[in-house]
Amino acid sequence: MDIRTYLQEGAARVEARLAEITAGDAAPFSLVHNAMAYSLFAGGKRIRPILAMASCEACGGDVDVALTFGCALEMIHTYTLIHDDLPAMDNDEMRRGRPSNHVKYGEAQALLAGCGLLTWAYEVMANEGREGRVPADIAVRIIAETSRRIGWQGTMGGQSLDMIYTTQGTPPSLEELRLMEYAKTAELLNLAILHGALVANADEPALAALTVFGENIGLAFQVADDVLDVVADPEQFGKPIGSDKAQGKTTYVDHLGLDGARNYLKELLDTALLALADFDAKADALRALARFIVERAY
Amino acid sequence: MDIRTYLQEGAARVEARLAEITAGDAAPFSLVHNAMAYSLFAGGKRIRPILAMASCEACGGDVDVALTFGCALEMIHTYTLIHDDLPAMDNDEMRRGRPSNHVKYGEAQALLAGCGLLTWAYEVMANEGREGRVPADIAVRIIAETSRRIGWQGTMGGQSLDMIYTTQGTPPSLEELRLMEYAKTAELLNLAILHGALVANADEPALAALTVFGENIGLAFQVADDVLDVVADPEQFGKPIGSDKAQGKTTYVDHLGLDGARNYLKELLDTALLALADFDAKADALRALARFIVERAY
Repeated sequence: MDIRTYLQEGAARVEARLAEITAGDAAPFSLVHNAMAYSLFAGGKRIRPILAMASCEACGGDVDVALTFGCALEMIHTYTLIHDDLPAMDNDEMRRGRPSNHVKYGEAQALLAGCGLLTWAYEVMANEGREGRVPADIAVRIIAETSRRIGWQGTMGGQSLDMIYTTQGTPPSLEELRLMEYAKTAELLNLAILHGALVANADEPALAALTVFGENIGLAFQVADDVLDVVADPEQFGKPIGSDKAQGKTTYVDHLGLDGARNYLKELLDTALLALADFDAKADALRALARFIVERAY
Repeated sequence: MDIRTYLQEGAARVEARLAEITAGDAAPFSLVHNAMAYSLFAGGKRIRPILAMASCEACGGDVDVALTFGCALEMIHTYTLIHDDLPAMDNDEMRRGRPSNHVKYGEAQALLAGCGLLTWAYEVMANEGREGRVPADIAVRIIAETSRRIGWQGTMGGQSLDMIYTTQGTPPSLEELRLMEYAKTAELLNLAILHGALVANADEPALAALTVFGENIGLAFQVADDVLDVVADPEQFGKPIGSDKAQGKTTYVDHLGLDGARNYLKELLDTALLALADFDAKADALRALARFIVERAY
């Protein structure tokens, strides 16, 4: 399979589904609706919904339903980007080559747009259960897992630690960095894989294997990002090279060096692929995505 | 029944359930956990979970389960208070006689604490379905209804309009005010009543009647607050008198005058109580709560 074509086709499906989800007349709430759409349709790679679809495919489930759940995660991912850019957080005025949400819409509306996307994502997930596209007990399980992994013990908790490390001038140890990055970034990627598997009603052994896969690929995603922050072509990377350093963030490269970080990446990839040993060719897209995530840092 | 005793006993049950929900070791995410607890246990009246319990009782359901769903709404209500106090919103440095969350914990952690409570509320609701205290299809319905009513078409949308009216110096017409306040405040109170009824598996006629009740009581709550902002004893009101005026907010009293606002309150109460005509004595607590909400403004 050609992974770049696969990614392009996946991203196109995601754009179309997100457009369906957000269609309709938003009056009188057009301003906050526009603010949400501004960031949601800013041209991300859509890697989370693509992972959800690939995971669902690996388990023989209905990929179109996984797409919808993946779009909910993309809405959640977008909310974290809007809030992370706020002056009280990373204070980034640009995102994907355009003014950040709060620069365009003001801080108040950006804050609301973020929470609006988070809440809307739950509505999307709940409606899949309510309208029978997944059994209600599966929808409830997905919503509970999502909440735990994106909340104060997950994405938000990781961001809380990141702010502590960044603003208080106490750089995290390697173990603290791993825990913080896992919560902040890896958990959401792992969650995408879980969504796909739960939509497919995967059995517990398959879920366990995909969890090992997801944890390792989730971590690898951040390690690769840290490597790219040092070595990438700025055009392809989509953000300025060296921005971690400029923001005083500690990275895996700081702890492991460039070669050490790349070796760690290779270990994570090997462990992830080994976890898929009992899956057949339906998991090939998932395998290819794992390689893509790691190999862009080589 | 003595409404003050009923409110005190209800609030004590809410405190206890919220303490159960939030118990446990929060390390390494203690800072954001402390920030959430700081605002969650700041001594509110707990009117939303009390309404959920009373509504459930009116429909003959399990009040203890309604209490948990009501606590989820109290977590959501607390999140809106934390975010509304932020400098980018109303910029309130005090809340319930103590420094606001962002004054105590900084803006970044306050922002995360708010979103953390929102997300946690969903986990609480989903777990009620996952662990069988309500059927999964009821949990999914409650989660979908909650999302729509607290999101960009509800609480957040109302706050978005409030920020537009406040910062752009264009005072809302009475109709705009009603729509904005309904979305921002009334919808969440109405939702508490819906939670209780759905937990009790109320039939559609009962749901329809309780929706009329909830809409009118939700609106009345805000009108009463506007009246109290003019006439209340500051000790009992819990915030400075005249704060709406000081913040440049348009109120029902501006549009209707004091007597007009009180007449409107009486109309809303009459309509709400009439909607409960077919309910028996099990709805007496709900009736007493409606009277309490309105009569504190007399």
